[in-house]
Amino acid sequence: MENQSLKSWPESAARLVAVAAGRSAADVVIKNGTWVNVHTREILKSSDLAIADGRFAYCGPDASHCIGDTTEVIDADGAYMIPGLCDAHMHIESGMLTPAEFSRAVIPHGTTSMFTDPHEIANVLGLEGVRLMHDEALLQPINVFTQMPSCAPSAPGLETTGFEISPEDVAEAMSWPGIIGLGEMMNFPGVIHGDAKMLAEIAASQNAGKTVGGHYASPDLGPAFHAYAAGGPADDHEGTCEADAIARVRQGMRHMMRLGSAWYDVESQITAVTEKGLDPRSFILCTDDSHSGTLVNDGHMNRVVRHAIACGCDPVVALQMATINTATHFGLERELGSIAPGRRADVILTSDLKTLPIERVIARGDTVAKDGEILVDCPHLDWPDKARKTVNLGRDRVESDFEISAPSGANKVTAKVIGVVENQAPTKALTRDLGVIDGIVEPDEAQDVCQIALVERHRGTGGVTNGFVSGFSYKGKMAIASTVAHDSHHMIVVGTDRANMAAAANRLGEVGGGITVFQDGQELALVELPIAGLMSDEPAATVAAKAEHMVKAMEACGCSLNNAYMQHSLLALVVIPELRISDLGLVDVTKFEITDLFEDH
Amino acid sequence: MENQSLKSWPESAARLVAVAAGRSAADVVIKNGTWVNVHTREILKSSDLAIADGRFAYCGPDASHCIGDTTEVIDADGAYMIPGLCDAHMHIESGMLTPAEFSRAVIPHGTTSMFTDPHEIANVLGLEGVRLMHDEALLQPINVFTQMPSCAPSAPGLETTGFEISPEDVAEAMSWPGIIGLGEMMNFPGVIHGDAKMLAEIAASQNAGKTVGGHYASPDLGPAFHAYAAGGPADDHEGTCEADAIARVRQGMRHMMRLGSAWYDVESQITAVTEKGLDPRSFILCTDDSHSGTLVNDGHMNRVVRHAIACGCDPVVALQMATINTATHFGLERELGSIAPGRRADVILTSDLKTLPIERVIARGDTVAKDGEILVDCPHLDWPDKARKTVNLGRDRVESDFEISAPSGANKVTAKVIGVVENQAPTKALTRDLGVIDGIVEPDEAQDVCQIALVERHRGTGGVTNGFVSGFSYKGKMAIASTVAHDSHHMIVVGTDRANMAAAANRLGEVGGGITVFQDGQELALVELPIAGLMSDEPAATVAAKAEHMVKAMEACGCSLNNAYMQHSLLALVVIPELRISDLGLVDVTKFEITDLFEDH
Repeated sequence: MENQSLKSWPESAARLVAVAAGRSAADVVIKNGTWVNVHTREILKSSDLAIADGRFAYCGPDASHCIGDTTEVIDADGAYMIPGLCDAHMHIESGMLTPAEFSRAVIPHGTTSMFTDPHEIANVLGLEGVRLMHDEALLQPINVFTQMPSCAPSAPGLETTGFEISPEDVAEAMSWPGIIGLGEMMNFPGVIHGDAKMLAEIAASQNAGKTVGGHYASPDLGPAFHAYAAGGPADDHEGTCEADAIARVRQGMRHMMRLGSAWYDVESQITAVTEKGLDPRSFILCTDDSHSGTLVNDGHMNRVVRHAIACGCDPVVALQMATINTATHFGLERELGSIAPGRRADVILTSDLKTLPIERVIARGDTVAKDGEILVDCPHLDWPDKARKTVNLGRDRVESDFEISAPSGANKVTAKVIGVVENQAPTKALTRDLGVIDGIVEPDEAQDVCQIALVERHRGTGGVTNGFVSGFSYKGKMAIASTVAHDSHHMIVVGTDRANMAAAANRLGEVGGGITVFQDGQELALVELPIAGLMSDEPAATVAAKAEHMVKAMEACGCSLNNAYMQHSLLALVVIPELRISDLGLVDVTKFEITDLFEDH
Repeated sequence: MENQSLKSWPESAARLVAVAAGRSAADVVIKNGTWVNVHTREILKSSDLAIADGRFAYCGPDASHCIGDTTEVIDADGAYMIPGLCDAHMHIESGMLTPAEFSRAVIPHGTTSMFTDPHEIANVLGLEGVRLMHDEALLQPINVFTQMPSCAPSAPGLETTGFEISPEDVAEAMSWPGIIGLGEMMNFPGVIHGDAKMLAEIAASQNAGKTVGGHYASPDLGPAFHAYAAGGPADDHEGTCEADAIARVRQGMRHMMRLGSAWYDVESQITAVTEKGLDPRSFILCTDDSHSGTLVNDGHMNRVVRHAIACGCDPVVALQMATINTATHFGLERELGSIAPGRRADVILTSDLKTLPIERVIARGDTVAKDGEILVDCPHLDWPDKARKTVNLGRDRVESDFEISAPSGANKVTAKVIGVVENQAPTKALTRDLGVIDGIVEPDEAQDVCQIALVERHRGTGGVTNGFVSGFSYKGKMAIASTVAHDSHHMIVVGTDRANMAAAANRLGEVGGGITVFQDGQELALVELPIAGLMSDEPAATVAAKAEHMVKAMEACGCSLNNAYMQHSLLALVVIPELRISDLGLVDVTKFEITDLFEDH
């Protein structure tokens, strides 16, 4: 599928047959391993694997006849041989890393296949951005498939994205070599109401024989849910409880269970298998969103599988959920996801099936990592200027851009305030009385109300939407700005002081995007994300360290929220209630409409 | 996929969504059934199904909101609702029926999907014959998919078929709408030895994203078996014991277990699941070959599922093996094989999950059978003359065509004799001393040796290959002739008397093929098979009655073998040891070479 050196099974078939028959020497033979067979759900001791052309040629009790002078022989010394792990749904951008650096971070954790939905870059750079992600994905030594983003903008009419995705874009992308399906169909109300554009995107994917990703983020399991299932999405990862899991699988959808940096949906749902005894074949594990810190400190799919086992799942069943179940779902079961002839030789050696230490990772027959150290190059795309210079402010922002004028003659106003809620994605629509000085409404540290601004950064319009936010507990004169601003990814600036806000915004314009924290006119922290304003092409450890420093800077400004930065970056996500901000104004997400900033004027 | 009125899921999605949401009335609603969910392996009481455009729109606890004035409401009265049954590998020609009449015979048994390999007609009419079968298949009210035959001739160099199948033919067929994969790759020695033609056929199928059928008919599970698996076949149905089953599934192949008219391979292999506890997802049930009498008297896939349950398999697991497992294998799990939204509305109502009475069959939303009675038309193709006039003898055969000259001057010979073995497909290579009268070697009733002739019937060459066969116990003056003569399907004539042999051969030339039994110059029985000399377009009951009459006629001639007619029709199958006959001569199948008729001359 990729434009790489790996030959297809048909291209390599003659060699694979010759190796299995003993007429040709294998490239690599792994001797004396314990074969975890995800087809039969067996653990088979004293097994050998022979590899040629990056694919398994022989998997069985004795590969001695496949060894020649040129064969690299690896003694597994009884270790378990498990298939390389698959992440069934994820957004690379969540790691603030490019596909290359994300791959480099996860390969030592045993991830050899990822199904990635570059939804964020689609909002910034449209189909061209998706293509760049897709192209870098295909350069990697592991299998990085792309799901074509389905919903940009995610809230048509309520925001202006850098680019939009059309059904025609979807149809075009389906012919690209690395496209594996349609990315999560987040516009579930659209599907349920028969929105022609959403159904056209699904149709384009189904007609291409591709898998349609789902996203049904509602607890309603009645007719609305059934209507969504009838629309075509083949999987869903938005469930949070056992009933969600069971409902989806009964409808013939595959149910994906997430353990991301901030998602904990495995423990509450895996009981559908471990306690209710449902057929596990339709259950799949994924991460959805992993921050670079998680990748550096905790792991990736190995973390998810370990967690599933810790939740009581049989280890081989848990491995099936991260290997063959995923491969089957995407129509790839003859290509990857198991240790069997013809498949890509992606295999992990591990000495313990429960704690799952990742001791050696082999991808396409090459040892790509040992004991946590990567041994392979993850090539970078030569990202074009168009992708590196996406922060187009039009002009520098000045203090007055952030002034919020009171209604004429008012010396006090009642303003709508976005209320951040600890550990929750939804916000509260608050109201607060705020003072007015010289006609300008002022933030109020005593009430924990500071300013928020959505700074237009795609088209250089110079636009600023101003509002108020509560919950961060910022003190003194500060501002934090970010070009990661889901989903349209303009720039969100939150601050107690307009001069600091202007400085922070301009700083991101200068570095091409990222996150910066200003206090008293000085920059406390900076995470440069020059690619689309979303990603760094530095290593995960570097980015994780900068991100940690940035969070510490937020704390230094008085914020003590969990996941404070995530809360910041979601304040423009105009599909989650109750109150958000977009380039078009303050958005009442309970009514899906633009609303006034002041209660009465 | 078919050129029929059934719309694709994308084409019907807007309607399906509207029905599920309650905005549009379903065509059919089944109320109050017990939903056998083959995704979750659950049995869900008090379930409803709503159907629109021939597809499921809603499957859940209450479809009341889908019912409108025009909706047909079926009260299931608590009956089990199981998915229509799938036969994963079969040859329609084995029933001596056209696809239309075969469909008509099996629909009342609950079969709604068949994966058919028209290997026999491929030998007679080549790619054009396959296309005719494919085209009639697409006219049916159930899902009849075609596997492109891979091996015609099955033994290159040892026989001359009517037509041959090339890799180019395979590549062309892969674009036809009803082609689902490559038919069983019987030339397993070819694959193991890297035969370029066989690998090219597999490659053409894999490159088209289709499923490659396997056929590994050997007990050797060593390197040869592994080499075959490395060649690409994705399934196999030739296993006969538990070890065969386990070996195949470990290699990532799907293991098909047969219960055909003469195949009994379920009981000996299903223990891999019921006793060894292997993951059942890779196990599939099929028939391979069903005679019309079996279809009329015993059933089809319902017989296989019942048998699997009787062998100790959990009923829902057995049903999975005949529904979703099959659909997944062929890449059709979003299209059929389960009761779930978007899938073709193929559903059976049955009051007992063990005995599986087939009380109502619904295909694509229409009730097609009730209590064993078919309620739907199965359209016939207008078969062209080319397909109806395939018995081309060139000239009438005469008694002297069947004379076997002794070596000059001999008054006794030692002849090689094909030895038929009761209840076994392989024959024995016997030798018998036979008398010579006027230079002609004579058959010998006392030694149970009669004559066998392979009469060329594809090209009108006038050719006859003569030999001897033992085991039928024919008495008196008789002959039996058949144009079903695996795999090249010339005409096999067996007789004790050359005049009767000539009469029988000419009779088949006159009626366009079939089977005839002659005794003392009179025809005792005739089964007309005018289409390709292989199939009748009369109903299964009529063909079954004629076939039964034919077997009785063989008994009247002295034969008491089980499956006597099958033994007859396999005597030219030059891929099964030890001795066979072809248009090119007597064939030693232990050496894969033409051999002399006499031991020494």
